[in-house]
Amino acid sequence: MTDQQEQIRVGVLGARGRMGLEVCKAVDAADDLELVAMVDQGDSLVNAADAGAQVLVDFTTPDVVMDNLHWAVEQGINMVVGTTGFTEQRLERVRTWLSHKPEVGVLIAPNFGLGAVLMMQFAARAARYFESAEIIEQHHPRKLDAPSGTATHTAKLIAAARAEAGLGAMPDATKEEVSGARGADIDGVRVHAVRAAGLVAHQEVLFGTHGETLTIRHDSLDRTSFMPGVLLGIRSIVTRPGLTIGLDPLLD
Amino acid sequence: MTDQQEQIRVGVLGARGRMGLEVCKAVDAADDLELVAMVDQGDSLVNAADAGAQVLVDFTTPDVVMDNLHWAVEQGINMVVGTTGFTEQRLERVRTWLSHKPEVGVLIAPNFGLGAVLMMQFAARAARYFESAEIIEQHHPRKLDAPSGTATHTAKLIAAARAEAGLGAMPDATKEEVSGARGADIDGVRVHAVRAAGLVAHQEVLFGTHGETLTIRHDSLDRTSFMPGVLLGIRSIVTRPGLTIGLDPLLD
Amino acid sequence: MTDQQEQIRVGVLGARGRMGLEVCKAVDAADDLELVAMVDQGDSLVNAADAGAQVLVDFTTPDVVMDNLHWAVEQGINMVVGTTGFTEQRLERVRTWLSHKPEVGVLIAPNFGLGAVLMMQFAARAARYFESAEIIEQHHPRKLDAPSGTATHTAKLIAAARAEAGLGAMPDATKEEVSGARGADIDGVRVHAVRAAGLVAHQEVLFGTHGETLTIRHDSLDRTSFMPGVLLGIRSIVTRPGLTIGLDPLLD
Amino acid sequence: MTDQQEQIRVGVLGARGRMGLEVCKAVDAADDLELVAMVDQGDSLVNAADAGAQVLVDFTTPDVVMDNLHWAVEQGINMVVGTTGFTEQRLERVRTWLSHKPEVGVLIAPNFGLGAVLMMQFAARAARYFESAEIIEQHHPRKLDAPSGTATHTAKLIAAARAEAGLGAMPDATKEEVSGARGADIDGVRVHAVRAAGLVAHQEVLFGTHGETLTIRHDSLDRTSFMPGVLLGIRSIVTRPGLTIGLDPLLD
Repeated sequence: MTDQQEQIRVGVLGARGRMGLEVCKAVDAADDLELVAMVDQGDSLVNAADAGAQVLVDFTTPDVVMDNLHWAVEQGINMVVGTTGFTEQRLERVRTWLSHKPEVGVLIAPNFGLGAVLMMQFAARAARYFESAEIIEQHHPRKLDAPSGTATHTAKLIAAARAEAGLGAMPDATKEEVSGARGADIDGVRVHAVRAAGLVAHQEVLFGTHGETLTIRHDSLDRTSFMPGVLLGIRSIVTRPGLTIGLDPLLD
Repeated sequence: MTDQQEQIRVGVLGARGRMGLEVCKAVDAADDLELVAMVDQGDSLVNAADAGAQVLVDFTTPDVVMDNLHWAVEQGINMVVGTTGFTEQRLERVRTWLSHKPEVGVLIAPNFGLGAVLMMQFAARAARYFESAEIIEQHHPRKLDAPSGTATHTAKLIAAARAEAGLGAMPDATKEEVSGARGADIDGVRVHAVRAAGLVAHQEVLFGTHGETLTIRHDSLDRTSFMPGVLLGIRSIVTRPGLTIGLDPLLD
Repeated sequence: MTDQQEQIRVGVLGARGRMGLEVCKAVDAADDLELVAMVDQGDSLVNAADAGAQVLVDFTTPDVVMDNLHWAVEQGINMVVGTTGFTEQRLERVRTWLSHKPEVGVLIAPNFGLGAVLMMQFAARAARYFESAEIIEQHHPRKLDAPSGTATHTAKLIAAARAEAGLGAMPDATKEEVSGARGADIDGVRVHAVRAAGLVAHQEVLFGTHGETLTIRHDSLDRTSFMPGVLLGIRSIVTRPGLTIGLDPLLD
Repeated sequence: MTDQQEQIRVGVLGARGRMGLEVCKAVDAADDLELVAMVDQGDSLVNAADAGAQVLVDFTTPDVVMDNLHWAVEQGINMVVGTTGFTEQRLERVRTWLSHKPEVGVLIAPNFGLGAVLMMQFAARAARYFESAEIIEQHHPRKLDAPSGTATHTAKLIAAARAEAGLGAMPDATKEEVSGARGADIDGVRVHAVRAAGLVAHQEVLFGTHGETLTIRHDSLDRTSFMPGVLLGIRSIVTRPGLTIGLDPLLD
């Protein structure tokens, strides 16, 4: 980054929460960003406007995020939203607000993990070229669901890409199976969920065809892994008016 | 494949060579392709034309491939070429021939391994989003060069993508290094070459940023691994007039 | 190997079979072994004795192997047997023959893959020190059974080692499972079987405890992978009288 | 653990330090251990004796650890020591003290990571059976030395095992090498050091022979990974009089 480049002024809503705190640290550490406002329960949003914030990052709760969004769009301030709970109805309301402020940009993303998003993109892209595809996800043993949401989503993307390319069922001569050995069947894609102490969150997507395999693996070790995605969102949204959903469109 | 779909009629030049033989087998086994001519030294190319070949696959030698290409373009037959030795000068001559036959398609590719091509594409695409990137390639111990050509090419792609994104040097606090421990430096990207009995040809590209890593790995076990790429070339070239270089443009 | 060292003279029974042929090549290529007899259907075993064989390697069929063994033990020739079909009854007969020839050694092994045998040894040894253990085996899609015999055997070894160490059930909070996601349950050890084109025969054993994992992985690419085990058998059996079952006792 | 089994009473020296705190937590959480004393600067060791500690765990500093050891041996209390700085001279003094108290056990270990210790044991054991062996260690980019101490130690163990088995140099036909590509040469074993953001501490030992490879991989994510080794030390030392160095002897 050159010194001449102007910094983007950033405010954080939910600044004392677990994620908000990490965002504050990450913004503070980035040369091209300036942390100008930290807002949490009891603080007024007006502080953020007064401080000249160009982008607000929102990691708050579903019950306040819509008010925050409405206010920010009205003020002409861009937003990066990691708060959950967005239904199609809610997204529609945001689109309406933005239609009156066409210069404002809003990014709403369910997952800020760049690695996970890229893994899914690459998997969807590779799927049509390989006879076989299977997913092995590995998580800590306190996880309640198997397979993970990310693995299920990846499987659906692969299945859709295969269908579009006219690929049939994958080769599999299994005759004798101990129940469960071949994993869960998600739209025809086998998904295996490993649970072990010492693991955090990992996923491997294996593609195979004659004489070769291609493997895409993502290892996530802690929640700071979401920060590069948040920073990418901040840097992108200032020149990206309208509503953007998910990191995918930013990765092109 | 639906039954109604017409098969593409394919001829193979260099049909008795190691690669040619594999191509014949692969074409023969594909439902949507028909093997109509096998041509090798001493056979006339006219056979291929008489047999109504729509695509000729050429795995011959640098001293005959230009004649084959010239003849095929004249005849209006598409070509997929895996023969090596193409200089910019040779490519220019092919372009000239094609300029008089704008409906003919020619694909010339140095590497038909789909997995390797996708690995390189994904690596180039991921590079800008990660602080760190390193390459570990692993081959059988009879290999003469280290690192491999594919690893060197991948490193250059990563370096170019980083430069374009304005990324600086990767973090590395190494103070005390046993010579060679940190690998070869290819345009600022560290490349490690492992050589061991039992290995064939493998490459891992590791990307890392705060709290997460993304790994793209390719394992190639034998030369049949090039066949899916050759078949993709055949299927693509019938609707892709002009000169196409490398598989990359076909993978979009 | 020093030049002074005397070579071990080896005969191969079933020398024209798939495995026998590989054994002949491997013995021939080893500096410390001399291939003195290649015997197959129609040849007389006496040739092997006349040639002064010290060790006979038997990759024949269940219907002739017992005759071969009986004859070799009578002649005072050591044997390395890879032929299948050994019941406890058959082993008992071999023990009886050997009791009259206490200086002769016989090795009968169901699996000559050193890597696989070591993987199982290490897995059994590590099992008691980790809270969690899971197995992921990966094979070509023409395989009929899932999980593989090796994976099932490994799981049983792990379960036995855990029981002996007084370890209870592994931690696993899974509440919502898409059927099969958590793999097959083999004596309390979860086993996942991946099937994909491009794979040959692979197995990964994952152990985990607080903050760390230990992974033991075996990749087998072709049947030459059994040769180091056969050679180890030949070298060991000349100084190992009596009946030895499996490679395990040779690996200490 | 049965209810009848008596708990081992444990005291922790250096209890308010980073490691000491983790030890206190781990002892507290273990059903078969009872935390009876937490001692740090300013506290008297006598507290630990009064509390009936059977084992003291010492994560203090080199300048006080010898006094702690002397006192504990005198009192007849067993010790598990993770404090660094033990020279051969210091060990000799401990042996002298123990010679007067033959019933007391002392464990002094430079590394309590069970996974790392097992990885090294397995590597040393596998080394003689494979033509090739290479090490790839991967660490965070703030690490100052390359390769890591563990990787260097593993390489030396492999080299020693190969020498003992009479194995010569590994096969390697490399003719053209970009400087550093083949890694550092540690006693003839190639070691590659990867440094990338997002990594913590990882090591892979790759063994290869005809048609197969065996890989042993250790991933360490945080310092709690040392706790299972500390607990193993506590449980073992109560029935292991004399001086024990390193976890190795406990893992048999």
